[in-house]
Amino acid sequence: MPASDHRPASQISGSAVFPHRHLTGIDGLQPHEIMFLLDEADQWIEANRNRAKSDKRLEGLTQINAFFENSTRTLLSFEIAGKRLGADVVNMHAAQSSVKKGETLIDTAMTLNAMRADVIVIRHMSSGAVRLIAGKVDCPVLNAGDGQHEHPTQALLDAVTIRRRRGSIAGQRVVICGDILHSRVARSNILALTALAAEVRVCAPSTLMPAGIEAMGVTPFSDFDKALEGADVVMMLRVQNERMAGGFIPSNSEFHLRYGLTPKRLERAPGALVMHPGPMNRGVEITSSVADSAQSAITEQVEMGVAVRMACLDVLTRRARGVEGWA
Amino acid sequence: MPASDHRPASQISGSAVFPHRHLTGIDGLQPHEIMFLLDEADQWIEANRNRAKSDKRLEGLTQINAFFENSTRTLLSFEIAGKRLGADVVNMHAAQSSVKKGETLIDTAMTLNAMRADVIVIRHMSSGAVRLIAGKVDCPVLNAGDGQHEHPTQALLDAVTIRRRRGSIAGQRVVICGDILHSRVARSNILALTALAAEVRVCAPSTLMPAGIEAMGVTPFSDFDKALEGADVVMMLRVQNERMAGGFIPSNSEFHLRYGLTPKRLERAPGALVMHPGPMNRGVEITSSVADSAQSAITEQVEMGVAVRMACLDVLTRRARGVEGWA
Amino acid sequence: MPASDHRPASQISGSAVFPHRHLTGIDGLQPHEIMFLLDEADQWIEANRNRAKSDKRLEGLTQINAFFENSTRTLLSFEIAGKRLGADVVNMHAAQSSVKKGETLIDTAMTLNAMRADVIVIRHMSSGAVRLIAGKVDCPVLNAGDGQHEHPTQALLDAVTIRRRRGSIAGQRVVICGDILHSRVARSNILALTALAAEVRVCAPSTLMPAGIEAMGVTPFSDFDKALEGADVVMMLRVQNERMAGGFIPSNSEFHLRYGLTPKRLERAPGALVMHPGPMNRGVEITSSVADSAQSAITEQVEMGVAVRMACLDVLTRRARGVEGWA
Repeated sequence: MPASDHRPASQISGSAVFPHRHLTGIDGLQPHEIMFLLDEADQWIEANRNRAKSDKRLEGLTQINAFFENSTRTLLSFEIAGKRLGADVVNMHAAQSSVKKGETLIDTAMTLNAMRADVIVIRHMSSGAVRLIAGKVDCPVLNAGDGQHEHPTQALLDAVTIRRRRGSIAGQRVVICGDILHSRVARSNILALTALAAEVRVCAPSTLMPAGIEAMGVTPFSDFDKALEGADVVMMLRVQNERMAGGFIPSNSEFHLRYGLTPKRLERAPGALVMHPGPMNRGVEITSSVADSAQSAITEQVEMGVAVRMACLDVLTRRARGVEGWA
Repeated sequence: MPASDHRPASQISGSAVFPHRHLTGIDGLQPHEIMFLLDEADQWIEANRNRAKSDKRLEGLTQINAFFENSTRTLLSFEIAGKRLGADVVNMHAAQSSVKKGETLIDTAMTLNAMRADVIVIRHMSSGAVRLIAGKVDCPVLNAGDGQHEHPTQALLDAVTIRRRRGSIAGQRVVICGDILHSRVARSNILALTALAAEVRVCAPSTLMPAGIEAMGVTPFSDFDKALEGADVVMMLRVQNERMAGGFIPSNSEFHLRYGLTPKRLERAPGALVMHPGPMNRGVEITSSVADSAQSAITEQVEMGVAVRMACLDVLTRRARGVEGWA
Repeated sequence: MPASDHRPASQISGSAVFPHRHLTGIDGLQPHEIMFLLDEADQWIEANRNRAKSDKRLEGLTQINAFFENSTRTLLSFEIAGKRLGADVVNMHAAQSSVKKGETLIDTAMTLNAMRADVIVIRHMSSGAVRLIAGKVDCPVLNAGDGQHEHPTQALLDAVTIRRRRGSIAGQRVVICGDILHSRVARSNILALTALAAEVRVCAPSTLMPAGIEAMGVTPFSDFDKALEGADVVMMLRVQNERMAGGFIPSNSEFHLRYGLTPKRLERAPGALVMHPGPMNRGVEITSSVADSAQSAITEQVEMGVAVRMACLDVLTRRARGVEGWA
């Protein structure tokens, strides 16, 4: 069990170092605030590798995971994170929810609030839904992915992974490749990585590249081979099969040919860290031998996910728990 | 954590004050027994507003929520209630249940019993299913809604809400409006409110009003405007869309015109408390501005729900836990 | 709460008595290893009958129930078992899983492993899937049923039930009747019962009897009446309705006529113990009056199931928990 002296010194400064009530996105966070969350996550990585992982700091608090969109991995990750911190964790699945009975999102939010939730984790298919709910409840709200908007804990876990494997984030040349247009993972990562002074390249077919993406401080590429030159990190996005039907991508094999991360292509960035948010379409956006190579940090990303979510749950509930310096 | 001295004096009298093994309905409860449960709920309202809500009195006990009919809100409420009391709570969802494999209800009951459940919470689409199960198991059974029969914790939470907002239940003029014929919420509320000496009016189109309802001690109305005259509480029922198909209600807009609670209509009962068991069909049985007004107790009802369920779980397990005066 | 002195003496010998890391099947277990698990289960039967069932030995450990195939009973049983031991239990349902997104089984396994699970319980529709996963993760894996391969905890709970009701397993004449060909329950039971020196008869129509079954040390019968002569235990298998469509069984009523356990047929084995893994098709493989008779151990099997699963979870995690003699 991590004792309080495991906490980094930065925490001493209390809520001043992270004055936000919710985590609805990376947008709006200062670089030092992002770094603070990464520092906080570090302690949980070690704690999770111990035999006894439980910590009681969230004991007596109710965490509701309200998932309006299915996601096994992210839900598991948040559920495990909350339970390891001692919270009473309850899941609300969309498939069985009042939403199906025509209830409005705000009514659902007010219901969860009335049950005296202490922290609400939300995943929703609509961009902005999380922020809408955050404005209606008395407790912290954590965005577990909303539409094409943001997926902040994914960006944080990716940043922790890069920092651990590459030593730092600043100055790293990171290539993000895939459906940049629709991806909340790409969006949150661009925001986090540019804030932390990485050099970010985005690569996509023109149909999947947002117009004016340069304004986010990144360099767009349509040629994956060129994008890979000198890359330190290659972050592949998941091909969403529903995009195929939409005509954005001609076919899986065509996509693989031009944008799949193959061993041959990876030779252009020898030693680069390979990342993927999962679940992978092996043989489409990434070749199996690359996904399973020593360069891959893909399973490590999953591990960092639990640690990052523990950090966020801990930090966001400090005020309510009356932690010194946060009340 | 609420200390034992939070408990009302009434508890000292032990099991004599509430001699029932199960809570299958309001029917069969004495007025003082209902009041006892309301008193017990009061302590949990305050406890739930504290930072640390956990109480360990159900530690080591297994609570099984067997929901044969989907209900996000009621399931969440019972799950949170049990976890805050320290129980090991497990959910059995109908969608994944042996029921689909043709198992009989009694076999399911005997299975849950053999797993040594300490309390079983049941929701079922058939009236009487809960009582059937209660007769087959060794532990207390709590009815979370069965067919068109009863939904006792809903009536209890409504009574707690009325008592807190209006000061008392006796003498209050309560109008219940909507599908009286099919509603277990209406049925349990009529039983509880008349037992507690409220004056109850029920209002519905003739197709949705049970014949001979006067025998339950209530006054039937088909004209909502008349029913509202001098009302202290207006309790709207949810329009079930499946009733539309059955020809009971001509259309949502027609229903709204005659039985919707609008600001104009509410002028007939100025200051009346507005209630709804949720989830609401805004614009059908209730206008949004009414639902969100200061007269509305709708989100408070949700809050009371968790407290009432904690009280019921606590009281019903006292005998098994060997609480003094209850063993 | 069972104190450590409840533990049978056999445990003193530590990991030498049960050197396996996983429980993927009965196959590969020595008779004394099976007996060790049965002995371990005994203590939990009594503990579960107490008021307070909780034991904290798995506190701080994460148990993931990864059910790729629906099973209410087995999932409930493992979930209750884990929670009573104090583990943080999380369920991964196939219906909401990344598997639907095309993720490979090995990727799912590596994801659960990366979340630092301490024990993984798996149910899967493919034979061998559990062993495949066991080879990829760092923690113990428990088979909760895989395809037509094995269902070891079912065989263990059946063995505990027989031992308690008949005094011993060795020398008992056990008839297993039903779809022997496709049943993992039959397979695991044949392995366990023959290892423990029972005399096993298997009975099925020829279309549902594996060729060469004698090699497993059992005697095949196609005539149920003959098989029942002098039986001490009659174990009925569940008729899987999907087999009907496959042409293996002509009809439910035809099956009942030839292979249903009726009161009349049971007269051939007076005093024999009647068993069924559940859920039952009453009136098909078993007549209700037989299922509910004093000879039936069917609900007792369910009870033993929780105890056996607690024993397996406890034993398999001893090494990781640093229990003396197991580290």
